[in-house]
Amino acid sequence: MQIINKILEIETDDNIGIYNVTPQIKDLLAETGIKNGQVLVSSRHTTTALTINEYEIRLLEDIKAYLRKLAPENEQYLHNDLHLRVVPPDEPINAHSHLMAMTMGNSEVIPIVEGKLGLGTWQSVLFLELDGPRKRTLSVQLMGI
Amino acid sequence: MQIINKILEIETDDNIGIYNVTPQIKDLLAETGIKNGQVLVSSRHTTTALTINEYEIRLLEDIKAYLRKLAPENEQYLHNDLHLRVVPPDEPINAHSHLMAMTMGNSEVIPIVEGKLGLGTWQSVLFLELDGPRKRTLSVQLMGI
Amino acid sequence: MQIINKILEIETDDNIGIYNVTPQIKDLLAETGIKNGQVLVSSRHTTTALTINEYEIRLLEDIKAYLRKLAPENEQYLHNDLHLRVVPPDEPINAHSHLMAMTMGNSEVIPIVEGKLGLGTWQSVLFLELDGPRKRTLSVQLMGI
Repeated sequence: MQIINKILEIETDDNIGIYNVTPQIKDLLAETGIKNGQVLVSSRHTTTALTINEYEIRLLEDIKAYLRKLAPENEQYLHNDLHLRVVPPDEPINAHSHLMAMTMGNSEVIPIVEGKLGLGTWQSVLFLELDGPRKRTLSVQLMGI
Repeated sequence: MQIINKILEIETDDNIGIYNVTPQIKDLLAETGIKNGQVLVSSRHTTTALTINEYEIRLLEDIKAYLRKLAPENEQYLHNDLHLRVVPPDEPINAHSHLMAMTMGNSEVIPIVEGKLGLGTWQSVLFLELDGPRKRTLSVQLMGI
Repeated sequence: MQIINKILEIETDDNIGIYNVTPQIKDLLAETGIKNGQVLVSSRHTTTALTINEYEIRLLEDIKAYLRKLAPENEQYLHNDLHLRVVPPDEPINAHSHLMAMTMGNSEVIPIVEGKLGLGTWQSVLFLELDGPRKRTLSVQLMGI
């Protein structure tokens, strides 16, 4: 049984952006030689998220619009009253980003089957930047035999 | 350590439908004889999802109404402008289905404890069809000792 | 490979409340001595949930307000027509709680890296009570080497 922990670095280029990280995860899997097991991909931030869906450029815009509708940036949020909190000088105004992140979810677990990611034809692993642009890190744990 | 990968086939009978797959997962678990470990149940489609909750017939209707409210079918979505995309002739109009799927989530991991699924009294594993009816497949990975 | 199953008991004190269970999970991990693997934390109820995000007291209120906006308590839900269902005498009126639970998700999987939870600086494991106050249980499975 191998259990291998890797960190992926992603420099995002948008305030809300969606990135296909499937190729990087496939590369990490190929390096391990694991044939049967799981990959656990985790966000290491509270304003990024992971989901599995179709990487289609127009759908990505629909996802962003949907998240903005669910958790609008300009609503009143207690977390955004920085003068009532103890915060560093560069603290962002980002309650909506936290809510978006929790709605989409913090991690994905993908089966490894016959040495490959057990994803369907249209499925990709998508990393969501919800308060960028920033340098972000993603945890990828590969476990199996 | 056993790691066993199975595929469940489900023929859905509704456009939006919710199916209790707990019995099939219990049967697969019983076949393996695993006493301690995990089951990873994954959607292999971008317009189906998995959740764990109560399989109560009236609640299922509430879940469907809730998803239709969050991501209405008849809103404007860029993904639905098929004339602006390269698509097969039978491509469905289903941006809302993708958004519903991401909201509910792509997979569930359930502990195996003393040879049984570690679910609470009212919990069932529910498979959500969000753009049916169709023939669908579900991945079930059983890992443990 | 160790696979250890524990139950955490939590007595919640609010109808909708958010509890940081990271310290209890760290304690369980320290007891096992596992250096590399995963922790699977699961809700065992259909009106509680788990998420990973920042444990900041004002953000917690934003999360509750967000969930109340998505699934208002006083909307019409079929699950709440108790006279049309076979139910015990103390059955709660809680369709909204089920919907909130599914939106936030039933479990979280966290990598164990070098003997510690692989969480980012601002990440905590949060248990959400969505129909309390009640005595609740949480499943924690620690797997690794």
